[in-house]
Amino acid sequence: MTDRPTILLIGTCDTKWAELQHTRQQLLATPTTPRPTVLLLDIGREPSHHQEISFPHPTLPCPFDLENDGSEPEPEDYASLPRQLYLEAATARTQRIITHLRARHQLHGILALGGSCGTSVATAAMRAACPIGFPKVMVSTMASGDIGPYVEETDLTMMYSVVDLAGTNGILTPILANAAAATAAMAAVQLRRDRQDALERCEDYLVAQELLQMVTGADRSPGPRPNPAPQRIGITMFGVTTPCVTEIRTLLAASPTATEVFVFHATGAGGKAMERLVREGALDAVIDLTTSEVVDELVGGVLSAGPHRLEAAAAAGIPQVVSVGACDMVNYGPPGTVPERFRGRRIWEHNATVTLVRTSPEENRRVGEFLVEKLKKATAPEKVVVVLPTGGLSMLDVEGGVYWDPEADAVLFRTVEEGLRGSGVAVLRREEDVNAPAFARGLVEVLGRVMGCRLV
Amino acid sequence: MTDRPTILLIGTCDTKWAELQHTRQQLLATPTTPRPTVLLLDIGREPSHHQEISFPHPTLPCPFDLENDGSEPEPEDYASLPRQLYLEAATARTQRIITHLRARHQLHGILALGGSCGTSVATAAMRAACPIGFPKVMVSTMASGDIGPYVEETDLTMMYSVVDLAGTNGILTPILANAAAATAAMAAVQLRRDRQDALERCEDYLVAQELLQMVTGADRSPGPRPNPAPQRIGITMFGVTTPCVTEIRTLLAASPTATEVFVFHATGAGGKAMERLVREGALDAVIDLTTSEVVDELVGGVLSAGPHRLEAAAAAGIPQVVSVGACDMVNYGPPGTVPERFRGRRIWEHNATVTLVRTSPEENRRVGEFLVEKLKKATAPEKVVVVLPTGGLSMLDVEGGVYWDPEADAVLFRTVEEGLRGSGVAVLRREEDVNAPAFARGLVEVLGRVMGCRLV
Repeated sequence: MTDRPTILLIGTCDTKWAELQHTRQQLLATPTTPRPTVLLLDIGREPSHHQEISFPHPTLPCPFDLENDGSEPEPEDYASLPRQLYLEAATARTQRIITHLRARHQLHGILALGGSCGTSVATAAMRAACPIGFPKVMVSTMASGDIGPYVEETDLTMMYSVVDLAGTNGILTPILANAAAATAAMAAVQLRRDRQDALERCEDYLVAQELLQMVTGADRSPGPRPNPAPQRIGITMFGVTTPCVTEIRTLLAASPTATEVFVFHATGAGGKAMERLVREGALDAVIDLTTSEVVDELVGGVLSAGPHRLEAAAAAGIPQVVSVGACDMVNYGPPGTVPERFRGRRIWEHNATVTLVRTSPEENRRVGEFLVEKLKKATAPEKVVVVLPTGGLSMLDVEGGVYWDPEADAVLFRTVEEGLRGSGVAVLRREEDVNAPAFARGLVEVLGRVMGCRLV
Repeated sequence: MTDRPTILLIGTCDTKWAELQHTRQQLLATPTTPRPTVLLLDIGREPSHHQEISFPHPTLPCPFDLENDGSEPEPEDYASLPRQLYLEAATARTQRIITHLRARHQLHGILALGGSCGTSVATAAMRAACPIGFPKVMVSTMASGDIGPYVEETDLTMMYSVVDLAGTNGILTPILANAAAATAAMAAVQLRRDRQDALERCEDYLVAQELLQMVTGADRSPGPRPNPAPQRIGITMFGVTTPCVTEIRTLLAASPTATEVFVFHATGAGGKAMERLVREGALDAVIDLTTSEVVDELVGGVLSAGPHRLEAAAAAGIPQVVSVGACDMVNYGPPGTVPERFRGRRIWEHNATVTLVRTSPEENRRVGEFLVEKLKKATAPEKVVVVLPTGGLSMLDVEGGVYWDPEADAVLFRTVEEGLRGSGVAVLRREEDVNAPAFARGLVEVLGRVMGCRLV
């Protein structure tokens, strides 16, 4: 394991050499200890010849031996490719290089500079090749506006360059210095984390050795065992399902089984983040209370988490309790952004930037079908339970509420029940609305049952 | 001047105390030198009683004497205010505290944590009270999506919290540690910059003393004078006006007068950034080539810079050359986002995420009127020149191009000429299109004339 953090600096050396060179020097002069090593990766379309470049244009010889792991295809000449193919090739290569370095514990942080193309390439590669928590910083001309497509479900740090990334002028210079210092410090923290992890792996090894001694009859005292790791439980939430999540948290905090709770806002990025963390093995169980991103995906709202929502937990076979919180609404921005076709629907202005449309029975049927399709693929259906709140799906969908529509909800409930019949996935009805304390308690009890432990 | 950087940590202590406390400890244990001092500002609605809070809820006694400068109004009880008024009061107070500390050179960086409310309060205060380049970091549940309203024209650094800011779990903990390390390192760099500035002010003083000696007849040799500061010139650019800006840069790089060039993308945030930097005195002159944000403001496109575009330079009385680059287009996102009312217009799909609508003669008239209204208010009209490219407004608006429409352009030119007649602002026509090298050269020559120096 290395003594100094290593930072990968990414940019187009053909068009932004002065800025990259300046940033590299800032990284080397950073006020952090220990000071970093910097590797420079060129994603420019045309080859650049500078000795500071660690990973040059694919047509130039690379001082790092990436071929060794057999994952590097034939080098491509970006300059000869159409623009879109160049971007794809540069993204794939960047991802390979990051993966290569990370697999060897030789990378602790990434800093990229770019306009729209550079941002697209660097963020796609960082999202694909780095876990959440790993330091990744993007200085971009695109970082004041909709950064959703660049950040997605990750903690990618975005810094707006304010001016074009061209020339190291008096406005850009402090911004680049800030970004360099920030990345260097985060990388130093990452190095610390890597060392801690290595130490813990080492301790695991010692504990295992000790157990082996016990089994084989050695008489050494085993010493105190560490506490068992808490059960990591993900929960999906929305403003209109917050009381339920608050109650769940209270119950889990007092649970006889140790738990660690992760709450994801059902904003598209939040649902994607939970799916990703399940895939990465960072969650042991899920209360997928607020599946409203499915509505936005199917009906065209702005908070969709894409077509792969509800797939990760089913595929991983982890315990999950699923409900239909906030499936009474489609989300839009300011009132003017609600499509014409919803004229005549119950439209609710939640605040200046959020406008809701009440779902129809037909839309609720499609939402139900989506849930059924995904949950039917569960690799361990006996660990999956759907719990339906027949008293209402959100704060607005309660008797007397502006979205109260038991007929529409009934279609959703029926679709889920009928669709999952015989699948091995249990479906329960409860008469409370989603935010009633008894409903929250019911969810936690059911989760405990499928997890095989006592939670309340 | 202090030895250690000071960081202001901002958050709602009533709802996020554990996370703030954890982040504070991370800041104090950061791998940067020198280690920071941390001040904690509570923007929570309800009072919290913790000795670590430097600026508590307004109903509690504050250990810092903010009243001294007379700018602090009566303390307000956030808890008794309606939500919107609470947010406004918390924003105003945060802004006052930042301004107070910065005025005394007692602040070097800011780190805020928040959900939608906390993000709104903290970013509004940071935008208002901190210049560009000053370290400001926001860890937010809102940082994967449209962050335009939070970042605006600043270099505010946004980090997505991935999970809800509730409980310091295994996903949030490394993210908070990264944010703390990043802010501490940026603050250390800011402290360095502050010292450098103080030193330079000190040198100015010495130079002035020396000159005084010369004037009063002292015979000491004056020594070499530093080079004069370069002229700082802002330019607005768009993809379809890039060749013009590239040519301007080439000319200015070879200019007999030293210049420093700042290019702003006309994306809304870019135009706002230029306006702000003019107001802050960070630019000496402007080539406002690409005024297409005015089109989006008036016609409803997505890249508006608001109603105050073209006001700052006019008010500051600095030399400016204005043109109408890219005023042939309204900007939208993917094709589906173009409003129905533009059916039948010339719609151009620039790429998957940018769709353009050709402006009509009537829209061009309104754009012309906007320019006239703003430029008429110039405090030094003799330093303002409008240059009109009658050969076309963008790469698309050239003879044979998809947006070539000399009638629509003629309305724009005529409106500007007639509107500015007698205002003291000169209007010139050139026969080239906006991207012809001769047009760029013309702009630079004219700018040199109003700046009173030779640029080409």
